[in-house]
Amino acid sequence: MEKTKVAVVGMGVVGSGVARLLLDQGDRTARHAGRTLWLERVVVRDVERARELELPAGVLSDDLSLIIDDPEIKLVAQLIGGLEPARTIMLQLLESGKDIVTANKALLAEHGGELFDRARELGRSIAFEAAVAGGIPIITSIGQCLSANQINLLQGILNGTSNFIVTEMEEHGADYAATVAQAQKLGYAEADPTMDVDGSDVAQKLAILAHLAFGARVHWQDIPRQGIDRLSPTDIQYASQLGYRIKLIAVAERTDQRLELHVSPTLVRMGRPLAEVRGAYNAVSVVGDAVGRTFFHGLGAGQMPTASAVVADMIDTAVGRTQITFRTLELWSRRESGVGLLQHRESSSRFYLRFSVNDHPGVLAQIAGILGENAISIASVMQHESSENGGDHQIPLIIMTHSASEGAAQDALAEIDQLDSVQAGSIRMRVLDR
Amino acid sequence: MEKTKVAVVGMGVVGSGVARLLLDQGDRTARHAGRTLWLERVVVRDVERARELELPAGVLSDDLSLIIDDPEIKLVAQLIGGLEPARTIMLQLLESGKDIVTANKALLAEHGGELFDRARELGRSIAFEAAVAGGIPIITSIGQCLSANQINLLQGILNGTSNFIVTEMEEHGADYAATVAQAQKLGYAEADPTMDVDGSDVAQKLAILAHLAFGARVHWQDIPRQGIDRLSPTDIQYASQLGYRIKLIAVAERTDQRLELHVSPTLVRMGRPLAEVRGAYNAVSVVGDAVGRTFFHGLGAGQMPTASAVVADMIDTAVGRTQITFRTLELWSRRESGVGLLQHRESSSRFYLRFSVNDHPGVLAQIAGILGENAISIASVMQHESSENGGDHQIPLIIMTHSASEGAAQDALAEIDQLDSVQAGSIRMRVLDR
Repeated sequence: MEKTKVAVVGMGVVGSGVARLLLDQGDRTARHAGRTLWLERVVVRDVERARELELPAGVLSDDLSLIIDDPEIKLVAQLIGGLEPARTIMLQLLESGKDIVTANKALLAEHGGELFDRARELGRSIAFEAAVAGGIPIITSIGQCLSANQINLLQGILNGTSNFIVTEMEEHGADYAATVAQAQKLGYAEADPTMDVDGSDVAQKLAILAHLAFGARVHWQDIPRQGIDRLSPTDIQYASQLGYRIKLIAVAERTDQRLELHVSPTLVRMGRPLAEVRGAYNAVSVVGDAVGRTFFHGLGAGQMPTASAVVADMIDTAVGRTQITFRTLELWSRRESGVGLLQHRESSSRFYLRFSVNDHPGVLAQIAGILGENAISIASVMQHESSENGGDHQIPLIIMTHSASEGAAQDALAEIDQLDSVQAGSIRMRVLDR
Repeated sequence: MEKTKVAVVGMGVVGSGVARLLLDQGDRTARHAGRTLWLERVVVRDVERARELELPAGVLSDDLSLIIDDPEIKLVAQLIGGLEPARTIMLQLLESGKDIVTANKALLAEHGGELFDRARELGRSIAFEAAVAGGIPIITSIGQCLSANQINLLQGILNGTSNFIVTEMEEHGADYAATVAQAQKLGYAEADPTMDVDGSDVAQKLAILAHLAFGARVHWQDIPRQGIDRLSPTDIQYASQLGYRIKLIAVAERTDQRLELHVSPTLVRMGRPLAEVRGAYNAVSVVGDAVGRTFFHGLGAGQMPTASAVVADMIDTAVGRTQITFRTLELWSRRESGVGLLQHRESSSRFYLRFSVNDHPGVLAQIAGILGENAISIASVMQHESSENGGDHQIPLIIMTHSASEGAAQDALAEIDQLDSVQAGSIRMRVLDR
């Protein structure tokens, strides 16, 4: 059987999983590739570090030139995280004629344009199914399977760490800090989980998906985003009483040739598939004008789900499918973007609002008045009777609005937060009913 | 821009949808194919019949030779249903050098081996994403995206008509006949829905998926199957009380190098994604050893979802991806099958049993005794107090078993049905907890 020599750069969690699939499951890769993917070389920074997987003699090295200077290695899985030296290594590999498979979403979100342009100039390809929701074939689905559609809406749960944390908070009523500590102990959160929980990681993935689905060339830092790091169990409880679960949702929606992008904790109605995504799972819902609504659910990260996507990409590249897709799709090309971004203030949504108010007569009227002045219409109000009698203590007031613009909601809350009878820092979250 | 001339054979519901996408949405097909898919010819049996879509002058014809003899048409969407003349036309098209896209699952399930072998001999390809769950990219997902996995389990809701009917029966408590009539009125069921509701259509799709996922070369008529055509609202009600919904489920499961295949009405625990698939939607859950559990949900049929899959396949073929997949996967090739079929009697499951018994002392003991003799262990029993006092009237007895073999369950029920105090025709359905 024909043999395609491949290499792996970086042997962390994902790299080890990839090496294991290539070494132990050669028959199945051979079945789908019509050839053996032969692991010729694994290059790491420190060869002395203990590895969970024993490689055949002579495979492991810390010398990248063993890959670069070997013309028989045409395909490299580049599995180093972060921006540098990942970017430089990627460019070196492209220059030396390698096709690349990567799982590094941060690198693509930051330098995708440069890397894809350079790959095109050199006649090479970059495959990246593993960069977004590894266990869900969302890149292939959008780029290939749904290609007859105009995609109008994409909604996703794209960070397993965040979803694990909100699921735990909901199920055990624990607060954010305690749940993060628990997630770290179980290996579901990094020692420094900032990028996972503050919405940055999700914004990077959304930028990649928005590019693929809408041709929008947007930098992830320009996507309005909020994480779950200030989420309170109180709001999870009230949401539940109203029939919703809170999820960290990424949205890309096309309306009138403009694209709305944002990442935010969102109330999702129970029973809706996105509301039922539990634990470390990811999910993506895509609405196309021909296909209607589709929904994909799977593990978003973890060693073997990510390795599964990387190896599938390696097979696609070994047989030549990736190169065709890469050439025809013109990803991150400098062609004019087909869609402009909607100003975040202009986007609209239903909102969940929680105020902490003095238990005085007239407060609800004041708040309702300000909402009305900002053209925000109230759908429902929840205010439980206070257990204490009158006085200056604070009670929670929950308001669900009808659809209103982000800008109006921002303005109204800023104004309400100025009221003497309202504690500053009122809570506002989007509501997803569709 | 480069132009690829394409043709469509058959202009029913799906053919019209495909023609509309090709004619009206040329820009998006061009974006994904890097070339225009030019609809050169549509061939139908009767050009006089009224069509919902007006074609450009000169495109419509009843003469297949206009396609066969035109060497510039290299790609044909063959959208005639049934076995003949679909099979003969498909062979003619392959012989004349065309690559084929089809949505005809019955044809593939019946003659896939012959057609795929012939296509290979001629260096041609057949793409068939639209043949199974049109709105779900399950063919690409299994054949391409999950190629690094050994697939261990595949569970699906693969017939939208059946799912629409069971959903309606559950929501409105109506009986089977009334619901079918309703479904026919709404266009969700054919005038003769037999193949949809008796499990045949699902078995055909399962045969295709089992071939793709497990390399099993099995004829659909050899798959044990039962439809929803004898489903009673009584069982839907009891299932609901027990926390389950009844769905028509197709299963392919690998255990110890043997494959279990069956199609049957099955109790699925509420909250499980498959239980929440409503109306005309389809869904497939696939468990791979690397990726873990994945779940796909979308419209299974209908004009535009199916057309979406056909046009995506046409793009894949126009750019050359299909040919690579077709060549490397060796679908339906005569290579030895990697997996033998498990005898249906040896497969195991939990079961839901409903007996209609005389309200006499000792009946439960008799039934429990026979179950015990057949090594079937009881998990729970539900027997409501009779509203009448003693006597010969029948009361329902519901038993949920622990896991038992299909054979033991068949034998036990045959024996129980012989008891004087039990009405013949006891109900038995599988239960899906995983």
